[in-house]
Amino acid sequence: MKIATTIKEVRKQVADWKREGLTVGLVPTMGALHEGHASLVDTAKEQCDRVVTSVFVNPTQFAAGEDLDAYPRDFDRDCGVLEAHGCDLVFHPSVEEMYPEGAATFVELRSDMTKQLCGKSRPEHFCGVCTVVSKLFHIAMPDKAFFGEKDAQQLAVIRQMTRDLLFGIEIVGCPTKREEDGLAKSSRNAYLDAEERKAAGILYQAICKAQEYLKEHLDTEDGKTESQPVTELIKDIIGTEPLAEIDYVDAVDGMSLLPADRIGDGDLIALAVNIGKTRLIDNFTVRK
Amino acid sequence: MKIATTIKEVRKQVADWKREGLTVGLVPTMGALHEGHASLVDTAKEQCDRVVTSVFVNPTQFAAGEDLDAYPRDFDRDCGVLEAHGCDLVFHPSVEEMYPEGAATFVELRSDMTKQLCGKSRPEHFCGVCTVVSKLFHIAMPDKAFFGEKDAQQLAVIRQMTRDLLFGIEIVGCPTKREEDGLAKSSRNAYLDAEERKAAGILYQAICKAQEYLKEHLDTEDGKTESQPVTELIKDIIGTEPLAEIDYVDAVDGMSLLPADRIGDGDLIALAVNIGKTRLIDNFTVRK
Repeated sequence: MKIATTIKEVRKQVADWKREGLTVGLVPTMGALHEGHASLVDTAKEQCDRVVTSVFVNPTQFAAGEDLDAYPRDFDRDCGVLEAHGCDLVFHPSVEEMYPEGAATFVELRSDMTKQLCGKSRPEHFCGVCTVVSKLFHIAMPDKAFFGEKDAQQLAVIRQMTRDLLFGIEIVGCPTKREEDGLAKSSRNAYLDAEERKAAGILYQAICKAQEYLKEHLDTEDGKTESQPVTELIKDIIGTEPLAEIDYVDAVDGMSLLPADRIGDGDLIALAVNIGKTRLIDNFTVRK
Repeated sequence: MKIATTIKEVRKQVADWKREGLTVGLVPTMGALHEGHASLVDTAKEQCDRVVTSVFVNPTQFAAGEDLDAYPRDFDRDCGVLEAHGCDLVFHPSVEEMYPEGAATFVELRSDMTKQLCGKSRPEHFCGVCTVVSKLFHIAMPDKAFFGEKDAQQLAVIRQMTRDLLFGIEIVGCPTKREEDGLAKSSRNAYLDAEERKAAGILYQAICKAQEYLKEHLDTEDGKTESQPVTELIKDIIGTEPLAEIDYVDAVDGMSLLPADRIGDGDLIALAVNIGKTRLIDNFTVRK
């Protein structure tokens, strides 16, 4: 496994691979890798000849007061994970490499999609994501790029950006990996103390109950049901956990991410909950 | 010379060339080609193995009330010009091909550079330009792209966007081509009637006088001079032409395009003047 810190090195390696007719998969990450990331690399290995993983904590997707400085960083450990999963090239640039002095160009999806869910409390977040992902696409020129379904809104935004800007890159979403109690794997889980970690299990418990509810309540005719009882059910369950403070529990159209009064196959239920000072997100797609 | 109307065709052709190890030059145009465009193709031919020219009147760089509908279109004639200059592939997409239904992602340089000069009266213009040029870069994946120095602000904005977003594409600026009386070649010159066409010569007359003035007035110590007398001189000369109405005559730093009280080698004097209903732009770079 090669490690590159400069754009030039990545371009050269990718150009060499392309000349050999090899396909390239890109797994963009912010490091602090867990099994979710590892599964992205595994999927990329299955679908592409060569896999590039970027490890870069992108400052422009954090707002002032968010956890940019605290975000966990352990590059040596990350390299161990990536090597074990057959990653071919790790790209670990400095902030200056990704944002040259005076850099002021941004990529922005100007649609209501970015104003829902996490966009309500993080209005600049997805512009930062689109900007850095565009840069990574320009550097690695992948055939496919792999993102976790845990960040459902990020995945939807990147899908649309990639389509809108005619990148010609296939975006592949990969299922959420979970801990034994169902908590979605996240680098931010490291912030939780023992008590909070236990409390965090309430998110998945609520999701499971909502899925059970939906199994019984999807209308036999149009395959849909009112969304409010489902989101209320989730809110009620999470409300039983004293350490949990709900940011949002929303039911949205699976394509546009706009609020949906009735939901059915393919639509999304997404939630953000603060456990202590740690903001956790999770979601599931409604299935018939 | 091949003609492609779909992105897919361009990608396939470019991929074939790249597999052969050939370099690709891109000349983005809005058609209505003149000798200025032809010289871009000539330069691209000199510097690259294969040349792609796009002919696309980009709607997002026109504001409501501007000349999108009136903009001259003559694709057959354009193809004749391109064939004669050795262009290898013409990309002539529909609006729907470049802006898929629901497309809402934009590329924006958020700096004061876009607020000067033409940006003052056309605040959304450069966002439209950056967006369409990004798309063309994603489609044609050129090694180099060629733009006219006549659109000096566009060239500066695209240089910065390309650098900021880490495109890895070299931007080549090519000198302005002029008519016999010095009027800068422009597709919009076709809007001028005989009387206006004659009046339009005043722009270049003013530029020449300003260059003479600068030759005599650049300070022997710092190589600079006060910019206001130069811009006033240009305004006075253009003011003698009853059909001309000045939008701006500005002296700006050659890199940042910010207003410069003193100007010297590499700085820019740029102007926009309405002749009747036709908005013409021109500029020159100060040289020692």
